[in-house]
Amino acid sequence: MTSAPDLFQSRLQETGLAVEALLDKLLGSTPLVSETTRPDRLLAAMRHGALGGGKRLRPFLLVESARLCGAATEAALLAGSALELVHCYSLVHDDLPAMDDDDLRRGRPTVHKVYDDAMAILAGDALLTLAFDVMSRPEIHEDAAVRLELVRGLARASGLGGMAGGQALDLEAEGRYEADLKPLTLSERDIRQLQAMKTGALLLFAVEAGGILGRANAATQSALKSYGRAVGAAFQIADDILDVEADTATLGKEAGKDADRGKGTLVQLLGLDAAKAERDRLARTALEALGNFGTDADMLRAIAHFIVKRGH
Amino acid sequence: MTSAPDLFQSRLQETGLAVEALLDKLLGSTPLVSETTRPDRLLAAMRHGALGGGKRLRPFLLVESARLCGAATEAALLAGSALELVHCYSLVHDDLPAMDDDDLRRGRPTVHKVYDDAMAILAGDALLTLAFDVMSRPEIHEDAAVRLELVRGLARASGLGGMAGGQALDLEAEGRYEADLKPLTLSERDIRQLQAMKTGALLLFAVEAGGILGRANAATQSALKSYGRAVGAAFQIADDILDVEADTATLGKEAGKDADRGKGTLVQLLGLDAAKAERDRLARTALEALGNFGTDADMLRAIAHFIVKRGH
Repeated sequence: MTSAPDLFQSRLQETGLAVEALLDKLLGSTPLVSETTRPDRLLAAMRHGALGGGKRLRPFLLVESARLCGAATEAALLAGSALELVHCYSLVHDDLPAMDDDDLRRGRPTVHKVYDDAMAILAGDALLTLAFDVMSRPEIHEDAAVRLELVRGLARASGLGGMAGGQALDLEAEGRYEADLKPLTLSERDIRQLQAMKTGALLLFAVEAGGILGRANAATQSALKSYGRAVGAAFQIADDILDVEADTATLGKEAGKDADRGKGTLVQLLGLDAAKAERDRLARTALEALGNFGTDADMLRAIAHFIVKRGH
Repeated sequence: MTSAPDLFQSRLQETGLAVEALLDKLLGSTPLVSETTRPDRLLAAMRHGALGGGKRLRPFLLVESARLCGAATEAALLAGSALELVHCYSLVHDDLPAMDDDDLRRGRPTVHKVYDDAMAILAGDALLTLAFDVMSRPEIHEDAAVRLELVRGLARASGLGGMAGGQALDLEAEGRYEADLKPLTLSERDIRQLQAMKTGALLLFAVEAGGILGRANAATQSALKSYGRAVGAAFQIADDILDVEADTATLGKEAGKDADRGKGTLVQLLGLDAAKAERDRLARTALEALGNFGTDADMLRAIAHFIVKRGH
């Protein structure tokens, strides 16, 4: 008999492997171009940015939400891979010298270190573009309206009002624009808003997408939304706590960088203990949102636990 | 009575103004974020990159192709604006120091000069993302399948197998990767392929999108495709000719930069006279592709003439 934590770990791993295989296939070749002029270097940079790493947490959230709503796992895995392409593009661009200037990601050199800044910019662009290509494919859902809702939701979660906007606010919070603009002084509410955009929006969309794929009713969609919002917020606080506590070896990226730059995080504003309490409170909120579901939602519950307890 | 060239110029201008107004509206505010933490700097960078310039040739091609196929102009203008957002994002990223390193665009400082590299990267990302948001909106077409075909076509024209892939090949053709990779030596066929990806794919998609919006039959789609492919190729050769002939004042960007870097263009490979002859031949091919249409296609014919004759 498999215990619950074992089942969670095996499901997480299984989904991660399936997403890796799908991404490998999606980035397997370049259509449209002739043999002599394939953009091989760009494709290699895209593969470096998308393959071989990560927990694939966003696809896992999508797949498990879809499963709860009765949608086919195969379609959810493809939608999850599209979502993961957006996450990967954001990491490639965030790591650039002009942005967070990171040399390491998941223990490996970042894309611009292996290739160069130009290829990293283009690789990010092409990964983002591919995400919308994949999300519009008929294998995702037979009904075009469903795929379109996913395309639009992905765009909204990723753009000005979501991830990209949150990243821009984060750069402003670093105070790098002091010369010509007052640095953003962030209140607790501001930090929560920034994080809901920067990392929360994609995590929330992962859960919403499962509901869309399964054509969930309004009550289920609403519950999933509450769960997704809480899990997303808990995830970012857990990440900020890890950044302060972990060392470079465990994390696979340079630790303490966020604090060095004076970025606004809840850890900084409230202190480590209060941040941990808030992370745990949000995890409980996530579990409460699933109160009306039975054992079908156990995997989503396990994800909330995992986010609080993960070491990296 | 208005003569044909006058009608062309007034239509071009009218469409340009309508696209400008739509882009202004699309970039008018940031939903989702609270008053205290709006990513105003990012929005301003996006506006700088998208507003106040350009002939809006891609939307014009889309609108006129849609008109030929009986689609509503209002919907075509919105689809054209989505397409223009992709074009604008590509200019913002191409101008970055890590890419083509241009300080001027349309006679104004480029986005990274006014803001910084980080904001220019994010602004490009968010413009690209917004394009897919806009293209999936119900105002584009009542049938979700039609919008989805547009989303997918836009993604394919812009990504690894299209614009981004072409730009990557162009960087390789500059020989900047000689240290660890043989520089690409491009044959005439290679250059045509590179240009069909880098600039041709979006121009071709503009024309195809008109056909998709108007649910054109296979023969019309095929004719539009031939026209779009020829017009796209002629446009790039005309651009390369202009780059050699024009000075900075006329062009609004630094002239002669492509040649300085030793990029592979047909002008370089074949010489100026042969390149002009090829440009004119492609324009004739574009006109021939429209042979089965009546006066309805006059505006598309005028575009082919315009591309050959334009001064900048």
